[in-house]
Amino acid sequence: MNAPLRPRADVPPLATLPAAAYRQAVKIRFSHCDPAGIVYFAKYFDIANGVVEDFFPAALGLDYHDIVGPRRIGLGFAHAECDFLKPGKMGDQLTCAVLVDAIGTASITLTLLGYRDGVPALAMRLVMVTTSLTSYRAVPVPDDVRAAVERYKETCR
Amino acid sequence: MNAPLRPRADVPPLATLPAAAYRQAVKIRFSHCDPAGIVYFAKYFDIANGVVEDFFPAALGLDYHDIVGPRRIGLGFAHAECDFLKPGKMGDQLTCAVLVDAIGTASITLTLLGYRDGVPALAMRLVMVTTSLTSYRAVPVPDDVRAAVERYKETCR
Amino acid sequence: MNAPLRPRADVPPLATLPAAAYRQAVKIRFSHCDPAGIVYFAKYFDIANGVVEDFFPAALGLDYHDIVGPRRIGLGFAHAECDFLKPGKMGDQLTCAVLVDAIGTASITLTLLGYRDGVPALAMRLVMVTTSLTSYRAVPVPDDVRAAVERYKETCR
Amino acid sequence: MNAPLRPRADVPPLATLPAAAYRQAVKIRFSHCDPAGIVYFAKYFDIANGVVEDFFPAALGLDYHDIVGPRRIGLGFAHAECDFLKPGKMGDQLTCAVLVDAIGTASITLTLLGYRDGVPALAMRLVMVTTSLTSYRAVPVPDDVRAAVERYKETCR
Repeated sequence: MNAPLRPRADVPPLATLPAAAYRQAVKIRFSHCDPAGIVYFAKYFDIANGVVEDFFPAALGLDYHDIVGPRRIGLGFAHAECDFLKPGKMGDQLTCAVLVDAIGTASITLTLLGYRDGVPALAMRLVMVTTSLTSYRAVPVPDDVRAAVERYKETCR
Repeated sequence: MNAPLRPRADVPPLATLPAAAYRQAVKIRFSHCDPAGIVYFAKYFDIANGVVEDFFPAALGLDYHDIVGPRRIGLGFAHAECDFLKPGKMGDQLTCAVLVDAIGTASITLTLLGYRDGVPALAMRLVMVTTSLTSYRAVPVPDDVRAAVERYKETCR
Repeated sequence: MNAPLRPRADVPPLATLPAAAYRQAVKIRFSHCDPAGIVYFAKYFDIANGVVEDFFPAALGLDYHDIVGPRRIGLGFAHAECDFLKPGKMGDQLTCAVLVDAIGTASITLTLLGYRDGVPALAMRLVMVTTSLTSYRAVPVPDDVRAAVERYKETCR
Repeated sequence: MNAPLRPRADVPPLATLPAAAYRQAVKIRFSHCDPAGIVYFAKYFDIANGVVEDFFPAALGLDYHDIVGPRRIGLGFAHAECDFLKPGKMGDQLTCAVLVDAIGTASITLTLLGYRDGVPALAMRLVMVTTSLTSYRAVPVPDDVRAAVERYKETCR
């Protein structure tokens, strides 16, 4: 039973990610952790949202808060999943990276990977759906967002 | 684009769940919601953990806090995923149900479904792995937990 | 140093609270707790908001979500403070009570007390300010809210 | 009623804080905010804990996680209070500063101030109590912590 929780075969090593892939350091805090002493799984999803929030201006040149705020276009997820590969502890430094898997009519599928000391710690798939924050229904990915995401995806090829 | 975010064909109607399936009412709070006015996706995972926490004593006859506390056996997730089918709003009443999909050597796979007014709102798959909170490595599902989970699974057949 | 963290002289015993005082049971969850094994202080403020959210319909006959939502009147706090008298642990059952201290032009000052096994565990003072969610500036407490809060305060005299 | 929520007379301007006062930039995120569109008050306390967590190594030369973890000395709060002076919005950049008010036998009283565009946005008082994480009772402030906090307090005089 002394095996790690999951095989990590399918998560690429940090060093092999495209050079252009957006990377962000994340510090694991006291309040991310639970009485088991490790990062509470729901916090990883919250951390991921923060990474995506920074990915928008840093990698896409888009203002996340302007889109969700004044433009009233939601960037929430219709699907989110995560493999938790290694438990995280307070004081850990994660390196997170974001890749674009697919761009649909009203959706953008992202992969978010997290590494600690170069070792994969978490692997997420996030299906963002652009929605009207008036009707709460899907709307086409706005042109500027689509163009930026496609450009980023190209760069990471 | 006025289609709902996701087809719901694969989520069984609440009324067709096994009679023995554990059900729990969850109130959506102000603090579950984000500036988009709907439940923040990471909060659904937190809500799910609370449902599982109550599922243990109520449906399995097990003391979750005793297992995670004095017994030092972690009940965290190695994998978690969710389809967010309908946006939730503050004041909503969700009915959540928990089903057991599989029991492995060191894992228990759960399905957690959430309904609002009988309509599927979220569908989760949660792979719980029993771990030593000393070594943070997987350990076999304890006998009492295995027996209780198997019994519950049978009852829901 | 074996003294409790704080004298509790000024927190009234649960049994001496006015009979009409709103009381609510709160279950301390795994996710409320931190790596120190006790309730994370910020979570107590979140718990308090949930208690106030329920206090509105249950004790005041007012729809909190309607006020904050369609009526666009914020019920946030301009001041919040808490004495944490006893550490909380997962599985604890708290009894919370809400009292009205004062009603101002644009503010309602609440005391929220929490007890575990009848022993004071936390004591909060919360200064709610009614604000326009358009201008984010204080507005007078709406008439229906004022009337209901005054009535409740009278009842608890 | 168009007055700001609170007078700010007693919060010193950012520019007048001691040069040695620890300062930290904090970005207000989507998930810090609530359906009212502004930072949820409980999140400010969580943000504050993160600032204190960074204050320990950066300003005191102490390893917060080592103290709370292996050394099993809790650094939780027996009292926390905050004046919320201006609503925060996603995308805001706060500058937070930490000052030491007092050092007691088993407690350290901190002031944490937050500014947006140089204007006071929040003012907290936090009474940290050093506790044994075995007995959950107060213990004297460890010598190395006391020395570092006293030194910092001197520097900020």
